[in-house]
Amino acid sequence: MSQIQTQFIKNVLAGTETQLSEKGSAFAPANIALSKYWGKRNAELNLPATSSLSVSLGDLGTKTEIRVAAEDSVFLNGEAMGSETLFYKRTVDFLKLFPMVGAHFEVRTQNSIPTAAGLASSASGFAALVLALNDLAGWGLGRRMLSLIARLGSGSAARSVYSGFVQWYAGTDDDGSDSYAERIDAEWPELRVGILEVSNVHKPVGSREGMNRTVATSELYNSWPAQADADLEAIRLSIREKDFPMLGKTAEHNALSMHATMLAAWPPLIYLQPESLEIIHTVQRLRGEGLELFLTIDAGPNIKLLFLESVASDVIAAFPDLRIIQPFG
Amino acid sequence: MSQIQTQFIKNVLAGTETQLSEKGSAFAPANIALSKYWGKRNAELNLPATSSLSVSLGDLGTKTEIRVAAEDSVFLNGEAMGSETLFYKRTVDFLKLFPMVGAHFEVRTQNSIPTAAGLASSASGFAALVLALNDLAGWGLGRRMLSLIARLGSGSAARSVYSGFVQWYAGTDDDGSDSYAERIDAEWPELRVGILEVSNVHKPVGSREGMNRTVATSELYNSWPAQADADLEAIRLSIREKDFPMLGKTAEHNALSMHATMLAAWPPLIYLQPESLEIIHTVQRLRGEGLELFLTIDAGPNIKLLFLESVASDVIAAFPDLRIIQPFG
Repeated sequence: MSQIQTQFIKNVLAGTETQLSEKGSAFAPANIALSKYWGKRNAELNLPATSSLSVSLGDLGTKTEIRVAAEDSVFLNGEAMGSETLFYKRTVDFLKLFPMVGAHFEVRTQNSIPTAAGLASSASGFAALVLALNDLAGWGLGRRMLSLIARLGSGSAARSVYSGFVQWYAGTDDDGSDSYAERIDAEWPELRVGILEVSNVHKPVGSREGMNRTVATSELYNSWPAQADADLEAIRLSIREKDFPMLGKTAEHNALSMHATMLAAWPPLIYLQPESLEIIHTVQRLRGEGLELFLTIDAGPNIKLLFLESVASDVIAAFPDLRIIQPFG
Repeated sequence: MSQIQTQFIKNVLAGTETQLSEKGSAFAPANIALSKYWGKRNAELNLPATSSLSVSLGDLGTKTEIRVAAEDSVFLNGEAMGSETLFYKRTVDFLKLFPMVGAHFEVRTQNSIPTAAGLASSASGFAALVLALNDLAGWGLGRRMLSLIARLGSGSAARSVYSGFVQWYAGTDDDGSDSYAERIDAEWPELRVGILEVSNVHKPVGSREGMNRTVATSELYNSWPAQADADLEAIRLSIREKDFPMLGKTAEHNALSMHATMLAAWPPLIYLQPESLEIIHTVQRLRGEGLELFLTIDAGPNIKLLFLESVASDVIAAFPDLRIIQPFG
């Protein structure tokens, strides 16, 4: 952990007192961005180039328990992680930012989503870890402050400390203190997210490296921040006005444009698999036939469909393997 | 045909005399752009937003015969085209620009490449038509002037009036008089182009409409012209220095970036099929294993591989169905 990160945590925790419990526990939902986060303005503090907006995935997410312990141990879905695994390292490294709580921890994590399959398990993972840590340490911090801390673990984790629609602000301060997430005060009970798992294998290139490569080598990325800002405003408007075609169109356009910035990187960064492309073509065809169906894709091969409850049976007819999420219960 | 096009042809033909023969005939090679043409600065005159650079495909191309006749007729690969077909219409419409040659024509065209499968048959088609017309009319025009005329039929046809490496200049004049093509004085006998036909079906969206949609709706397209200009210079340098990795890398990066501008259009414009994506992944993998193999893709699903003669056997081992072209004989 760098000094700049240590200092950031000190600032966030200023005025709080640590009152240790025996155990901290929390759940955080996975989220999918409708307007994506891709590219950083500061890598050490995970400050994004643009704001982003997500919807959480109901009870799909991460449940974490944490205790102070004599030595570090990390369990994922009941299995002890070796100290050489990326999952162990990222967890233990992150916890070194909190010596005021303990030197070593036992962390038990249950993911109800496939790890590293482009379903943002690191987002719900770090969010749950920070919420559990707040519970263990008795800080009593509000969600906004917790989103700042979660952000250091994984950018999009800032959004997973809330459920529902969430906006993560890019902020402008160099110290990262204004790049937090906030819940948008809106519900949309008819909204459905359908998950099509294309591949459960680990990603060949992680999002961190993928972002860095895109920003460094993709000429087209220069036009991305302006689009991302405009898309986010359109998504906010579509939520306010319950305009589903606008929401769907903007989210799909935003996601495909993000993948376009990657396709234009060197070496080309292609998370989509042939099966993903097949699904994208099918969604275009169905939409041409009048079905109000849209999609979004994170930095992985899986496709997430966006639709309203009223057309669910048509969507299931086209995609029988669909796993349907009700973000608003 | 618009007045502006009629005036353009008058300007190009100024000072020439029509001395009609019984028949005109010519061959023009297909070409693939190593640095692509995507987007126009003037639609009526087919003036491109950027310069582009291609290599011709040896004896793959179009052979055309033309005669003045009592009524219009168009034959493609021996078959009479109905007057309702796009091929007939584009041919006859174009010929209306040349009343000084005749009011009606019989045109017989042989394509040695699949029509409209993303292998630029309209490029060699209009180039062969213009070369044959020059032969029929006895104008004795040089290639540069003929490239200006061919451009009106199809932008990239400007490049198909030559063989070898060809640059088509964007030009700056509003009247289109400086947007011609020129042969680059270089040969590269070891260069190979391998064609992988993914689909022979007609394109769902033609390049004209595709370009218009991209320019109008793709935010990322704003960054394309700067990249295209830089890529073209890198390709020229790589040809001059016979630096194949630079040529291959730049051509592939350029092609994928062009497809990225389309992916970021709305509705999304995706010429790639699942099988195309499979090939792209395979090429990346082979390159990761040390093979100097690159690819380029036009506005269609087919993949064209770029490699040197020295690795041909390795490439054939990976792609047994490959059709190999020797651009320099």
